[in-house]
Amino acid sequence: MPNDPLPPRAGEIRFPLDPGALPGDARLVFIGRLRTPWTSRADCPRNGRLSEAICTVEVDAPYRSALPGVDRASHLILLYWMHEARRDLAVQAPRHNVHPVPRGTFCVRSPVRPNPIALSAVELLGCDFAAGTLRVRGLDCLNGTPLLDIKPYFPSVDSRPDATVAE
Amino acid sequence: MPNDPLPPRAGEIRFPLDPGALPGDARLVFIGRLRTPWTSRADCPRNGRLSEAICTVEVDAPYRSALPGVDRASHLILLYWMHEARRDLAVQAPRHNVHPVPRGTFCVRSPVRPNPIALSAVELLGCDFAAGTLRVRGLDCLNGTPLLDIKPYFPSVDSRPDATVAE
Repeated sequence: MPNDPLPPRAGEIRFPLDPGALPGDARLVFIGRLRTPWTSRADCPRNGRLSEAICTVEVDAPYRSALPGVDRASHLILLYWMHEARRDLAVQAPRHNVHPVPRGTFCVRSPVRPNPIALSAVELLGCDFAAGTLRVRGLDCLNGTPLLDIKPYFPSVDSRPDATVAE
Repeated sequence: MPNDPLPPRAGEIRFPLDPGALPGDARLVFIGRLRTPWTSRADCPRNGRLSEAICTVEVDAPYRSALPGVDRASHLILLYWMHEARRDLAVQAPRHNVHPVPRGTFCVRSPVRPNPIALSAVELLGCDFAAGTLRVRGLDCLNGTPLLDIKPYFPSVDSRPDATVAE
C-alpha cells in the first residue's frame, strides 16, 4: 500500500507536503531484489540482528559484472527501497518502537520517511557471480524488496562501537 | 558534470546500459544539503574518518518537524546523493583506490554506482532544530551535496567491528 492514505495513528503528524507525491529531484533504478522469509510487514523482525535467517540478494543481469570481488569483504552494506512505506509522516509511532511516545521520523529507523531507503549491514555467506546471487544473514525486510546498492562494509569508517542512543 | 561522458580510464568497463539515462523505478526528494569545506572532488578526503572538519547539515523547512529528538543519538547515518557522479561504470579505477587494479563497482565505496547514494556514520556535535541545522564530524563530500535521509546510528545493528576486508 504505497503512500498509505490511512489517517495517522494517535500522536502522529504529517509533513506539510507528501514527498511521495512530488515530482522528485532524482531517479533510482532497481538493480535486483531481496529474497527473505517474510511476506507481510507484521512478520518482519524488528531488525536484522534479531534474525538468523539466511536471505538471498538477486542482482539483475545488467549489473552482475560489478559483483566479482565483492567477497573480499566479510560484511556488506545493502541499500534497498521500502516500496510499501508511506512517506508523509514527520512524527510517527512505529510498530516496533520500544518507547510508546511518537517520535520524529529522523529519530527512528522505521521504513516510513521522505525517502524510504533502508540499509542493513549484513554478513556475506556465499556468492554465485554468474547467477547474480549472494547469500547473506542480517536482513529484516519483506520478500521482494527492491535492491538499490551493494557496498563493502569498512569497519574503519562504518563501525562506531562507542555510539550511544538514549531511550 | 553528471553522468560524465568521458571515456573510461584504463581497465574500466561500462554497464550494458547507463542507469542514469533510464526513466527510473522510484523518485527521490532532496530534503536539504550538506555544507562542507570541499568545493571540488579533488579536495574531498578519501573518507570522513580522515577529516576532523566540522560540517553542517541543512534540513529544508518542510522536513524540520521530523528533527526534534535526533540528539538522543551520539552518531547519525546520513544518506546523500552524489550528484556529480556518473552511473554507468561496472568496473572502475577510483581516484582514491589504494589498489591499482580496477574493481567491480559493488566492491568499492566510490560515488560512481548505478544509484549514487552515499552514506556516512557521523558524530553529532550540535543541533538547532528551529534553523534545521546539525553540526557533525565525519563527512567526506562536496559542499552542497543533496541530503536524502537522517537516521540514528544504532551500534547494536550498525557496528560490526569484526568485519574484515581483504586487500
